[in-house]
Amino acid sequence: MKTAIVGASGYSGEELVRLLSRHPQVELALVSSRSLVGKPLVSVMPQFRGLVPADLVFSDSDPATLAARDDIDVFFLALPHGVAAEFAVPLVEAGRKVIDLSADFRLGSTALYEEFYGQAHPAPALLEQAAYVIPEITPAGWEKAPLIASPGCYPTSIITPLTPLLRAGIVSSQGIVVNSMSGVSGAGKKLAEAYLYCERNESVKAYGLPKHRHLSEIEEQLGAAAGEPVIIQFNPHLAPMKRGIATTITVPAAKPNLAALYAAWETAFAGRPFIGLLPSGTCPDTLHVTGTNRVDMSAVYDERTKNFIITSAEDNVVKGASGQAVQIMNLWLGFKETDGLL
Amino acid sequence: MKTAIVGASGYSGEELVRLLSRHPQVELALVSSRSLVGKPLVSVMPQFRGLVPADLVFSDSDPATLAARDDIDVFFLALPHGVAAEFAVPLVEAGRKVIDLSADFRLGSTALYEEFYGQAHPAPALLEQAAYVIPEITPAGWEKAPLIASPGCYPTSIITPLTPLLRAGIVSSQGIVVNSMSGVSGAGKKLAEAYLYCERNESVKAYGLPKHRHLSEIEEQLGAAAGEPVIIQFNPHLAPMKRGIATTITVPAAKPNLAALYAAWETAFAGRPFIGLLPSGTCPDTLHVTGTNRVDMSAVYDERTKNFIITSAEDNVVKGASGQAVQIMNLWLGFKETDGLL
Amino acid sequence: MKTAIVGASGYSGEELVRLLSRHPQVELALVSSRSLVGKPLVSVMPQFRGLVPADLVFSDSDPATLAARDDIDVFFLALPHGVAAEFAVPLVEAGRKVIDLSADFRLGSTALYEEFYGQAHPAPALLEQAAYVIPEITPAGWEKAPLIASPGCYPTSIITPLTPLLRAGIVSSQGIVVNSMSGVSGAGKKLAEAYLYCERNESVKAYGLPKHRHLSEIEEQLGAAAGEPVIIQFNPHLAPMKRGIATTITVPAAKPNLAALYAAWETAFAGRPFIGLLPSGTCPDTLHVTGTNRVDMSAVYDERTKNFIITSAEDNVVKGASGQAVQIMNLWLGFKETDGLL
Amino acid sequence: MKTAIVGASGYSGEELVRLLSRHPQVELALVSSRSLVGKPLVSVMPQFRGLVPADLVFSDSDPATLAARDDIDVFFLALPHGVAAEFAVPLVEAGRKVIDLSADFRLGSTALYEEFYGQAHPAPALLEQAAYVIPEITPAGWEKAPLIASPGCYPTSIITPLTPLLRAGIVSSQGIVVNSMSGVSGAGKKLAEAYLYCERNESVKAYGLPKHRHLSEIEEQLGAAAGEPVIIQFNPHLAPMKRGIATTITVPAAKPNLAALYAAWETAFAGRPFIGLLPSGTCPDTLHVTGTNRVDMSAVYDERTKNFIITSAEDNVVKGASGQAVQIMNLWLGFKETDGLL
Repeated sequence: MKTAIVGASGYSGEELVRLLSRHPQVELALVSSRSLVGKPLVSVMPQFRGLVPADLVFSDSDPATLAARDDIDVFFLALPHGVAAEFAVPLVEAGRKVIDLSADFRLGSTALYEEFYGQAHPAPALLEQAAYVIPEITPAGWEKAPLIASPGCYPTSIITPLTPLLRAGIVSSQGIVVNSMSGVSGAGKKLAEAYLYCERNESVKAYGLPKHRHLSEIEEQLGAAAGEPVIIQFNPHLAPMKRGIATTITVPAAKPNLAALYAAWETAFAGRPFIGLLPSGTCPDTLHVTGTNRVDMSAVYDERTKNFIITSAEDNVVKGASGQAVQIMNLWLGFKETDGLL
Repeated sequence: MKTAIVGASGYSGEELVRLLSRHPQVELALVSSRSLVGKPLVSVMPQFRGLVPADLVFSDSDPATLAARDDIDVFFLALPHGVAAEFAVPLVEAGRKVIDLSADFRLGSTALYEEFYGQAHPAPALLEQAAYVIPEITPAGWEKAPLIASPGCYPTSIITPLTPLLRAGIVSSQGIVVNSMSGVSGAGKKLAEAYLYCERNESVKAYGLPKHRHLSEIEEQLGAAAGEPVIIQFNPHLAPMKRGIATTITVPAAKPNLAALYAAWETAFAGRPFIGLLPSGTCPDTLHVTGTNRVDMSAVYDERTKNFIITSAEDNVVKGASGQAVQIMNLWLGFKETDGLL
Repeated sequence: MKTAIVGASGYSGEELVRLLSRHPQVELALVSSRSLVGKPLVSVMPQFRGLVPADLVFSDSDPATLAARDDIDVFFLALPHGVAAEFAVPLVEAGRKVIDLSADFRLGSTALYEEFYGQAHPAPALLEQAAYVIPEITPAGWEKAPLIASPGCYPTSIITPLTPLLRAGIVSSQGIVVNSMSGVSGAGKKLAEAYLYCERNESVKAYGLPKHRHLSEIEEQLGAAAGEPVIIQFNPHLAPMKRGIATTITVPAAKPNLAALYAAWETAFAGRPFIGLLPSGTCPDTLHVTGTNRVDMSAVYDERTKNFIITSAEDNVVKGASGQAVQIMNLWLGFKETDGLL
Repeated sequence: MKTAIVGASGYSGEELVRLLSRHPQVELALVSSRSLVGKPLVSVMPQFRGLVPADLVFSDSDPATLAARDDIDVFFLALPHGVAAEFAVPLVEAGRKVIDLSADFRLGSTALYEEFYGQAHPAPALLEQAAYVIPEITPAGWEKAPLIASPGCYPTSIITPLTPLLRAGIVSSQGIVVNSMSGVSGAGKKLAEAYLYCERNESVKAYGLPKHRHLSEIEEQLGAAAGEPVIIQFNPHLAPMKRGIATTITVPAAKPNLAALYAAWETAFAGRPFIGLLPSGTCPDTLHVTGTNRVDMSAVYDERTKNFIITSAEDNVVKGASGQAVQIMNLWLGFKETDGLL
């Protein structure tokens, strides 16, 4: 099986290179990047010397040319939002499997897309066919879709722990407050003063309040789990580390029973290799999930406020992006879920 | 005027050394530490070479001996909780002014102390006389107290922005959710594996859920401002930086009017040199307050949830501890509020 | 094949857990630690949830009991210097293969050991039989030794680039000056104030001047390569990062020919999977080797001083410790050199 | 006295704002920046709220207009190399005192400038009149110059400890090897991928080998101290911290006598407030000089190699740039040397 990464120059692309080059079942046959065309991958990303062939060179990113590559089975799109759709449409038309890491196909509704992304959806027909997949959460059936939207980093850390609890009626769907702290790689490899070492080092700050774009997919997914519309407060922050998201969710208890909460998690996640349930009182640490495809989570119940406090941690570039995309590929192609991910 | 620091070996003590040694109105006449007795201060804290006299040596910390030092006007207690009271009582009896950075005299009620600190209060009579002072918030009159309790780091970042809003009826006193991210110095200079460089670097995690000790003083102060009991959700986190606290408060709006919120702040903080009001949409950054005695704050209103999101940032060791203690001294002794703090 | 890690609680032990648990040819059958006896490994190292069996528990570290485990083929000793020998002797006597990550068996001479470690060598007979192995450098034949001494972190970064050049007469054996910058994990998981987050963050400093213990193995190995005694200046530093060593070597040119230098490297390292030769002018970056078993290196020639400047980078915990130990095991047991290391 | 900062948008400019706004003898009357014209300083640098007047606005940087400002006594030029000369010439002609933080006036010879900066010197006549000043090193008489060149960050950390030793014949002038580790702010506020947080975090690497531009001023100054040409090996590195330079100098002993070395330092630096002499065996730590104008230094003698190892540490933005510039101003204008710098 051959795979391609379209838009391999950013942090998600980089992590895909790492994961696919070590994967036992697939070959990384193509990497493309408009800005790096013709450069050997290891000259730009010296960390991969010895891991990828020395003659693997960035190819150009022309949608039609890529779609014509019938030797390639799976295309990963690690492109900016809005750009991914230009590639997705011809690739899907040519019968390729596409896993899209952008936000272009994550929402069920074009209206919601327009509200949060400020433009008409570029490919509404394909949007209808696409599936949004968190493997631990999404019900079977998604495998038939021609394109899978790999979820965002914040959404994964929020939707994964909350969905089983909403489904089981353990937590309220109203009054949810989420605070997340992300490593700087979450902002991508952007040349902006705000992302210089000297500006982010020793700095924690909130940003993007009160209506971050990721809210759209979070609320849509949580609403589906709850069976009714969900509006949450979502406060994202940047923290001085490269990778990792720590999410802390304050949610009113519907059933004020911590054992029931854990039982709901255990049922929903039984046998899932990438879920870490920590005992109540032990909060997940981003350091312990860095480089892994795991979401760790735990919860406490506060008698005084009648809230549950749910904490989760993941590597934003792995389970929050590229690792989850590979996990989706594994399941889609019938490989072992953990192939290339341990 | 002569000052002493009792328990000068920790991070608050260290910062007091820095601030008092540069202060134009006072002399740092004594530093004590049981573990460092006899050592020159600059041998232990080489960062202060040239700033403190080379012959300033750590003296022993015997409460009676210290109380007998009638040449010293103000004693700063930078001692662990529970230990401070042992020193405070004889010092106050001897007529010295005491500024206590521990939690021993921060609460109005011995019952609340017992609930949160798990032991009977060690000096209830003195507790009644003590004043809890955030200079920007506490009404005049506190100057007559014999001992001032300098507030905790998290509480300062929470009480300061919320108090004027509760007093003015802008925000609800119910349903407040606070998430704070603290630099590692907040844990003190503790020899525990959890505080080793390799354990905290690249790590964000929540801790101490759901009932952190600081809740007691936060809720007592907010309750006083609101005129009714206040119960909040408080989720503290450690972030990989030395200094700084970023606090994000989600609070239901009582008056959903952002201009009114800013007006309440502007009225309450008019002329205060250590309050930074940032425009709505600009979130305070811990990096911008590091080394300063300032609390920066801003707010947004979320139409979707009817909440205000209030963000604040401070240096946990300065405005959250030693800087505020010096600010209190300045006002107590009639100096300029900013002396030694700009 | 079954493996054991004796002394698995430190950073080298931790990395061995990671590498052996993912290794395709061996099973991690035993982890021991005096301080953690009886605790499940994943409770102490939550980062390995899902990677090691949930019932893998730290066993006690009694040398005789361990030596009696005839089901285990290879023992890795990740113990403090001086302690490793107590375990190595009975294990070797019982016929087990031993890979020792401590300094106990790295030197050829008991006198040199005594000079640098301040005590008589604890097991001189075994010292004679042991082999010191950097796979890319050590000539064949070492496989017959009953115990392999895995080299130190600094030594690997220095000996690896210099040995081929000394052998080929490209560089002088006299006047070598080495400066190395190490991540904090190089100091181990020691509970000392110096290794607290707040003390090492934002801090670079030299230490251990002028006679670091690692000098003994460095000079012994370089002397063997040069065919004459080598005395070097070695200046180690701590840098504020978890992992990585960057080494910069200033060495007078014997043959002032950069092409000849690179040719000597290419000949010596042909086909070696864990050597990265970077073009002259591109200095290796610790970030690019973190998590890998690679040593990256490059060189420039300075016409003005007639020196070569050689720079190398490695992950101190992988190629500088546990990765190299696994690489040794792979070659010793006839596995593929890269098994479990890519 | 009124001062101006020309080119105040970079890290040196920022630090000058901090230092001059707190200075007891001068007023910061003007800040200029081509890219920030018209913006209030505190909107761009929120860390200075409350420290500088809210109405201090970046003015344009036109050399002629600035030269016409006869109300301003001292101009600090915090401009890129090559640009500073355009401003220096008209300002000096108009009789203003100029302290230049760029490299434009640091060398004694236009030929040397041309060799290292690759262009003809833009103002050779002014170069002849300019003085290069490290206050602790430069002999009296420089005060008459119309323009003072404030030294570079690396040079200060190297020239300061070595000059007294070369003058006293304690160390050899030949065979000097210098390795320096700099915080990322040393690279300035440059929008390049290499300076993004995610690229510098957890990264140490050498760069600019073997002929860094700062070599020119280092060798010229050391040659003057030695009375003969000095050629050194200078290996600069980037370390993952915002501020600080740690320098480690390996130099053959001329007089192998550590006491004599310290005596030479004590004589040369007697009474100097910004020199910290640490006992042999204690290496200076960048953390201990961060935010100060101090150079800390210490030395050991190595019997085995007959070398001295000299280590120094400074804050690259303070003593290595803006602090030293203010120190120069203090002495030039007859203020106390430490004014505004403690």
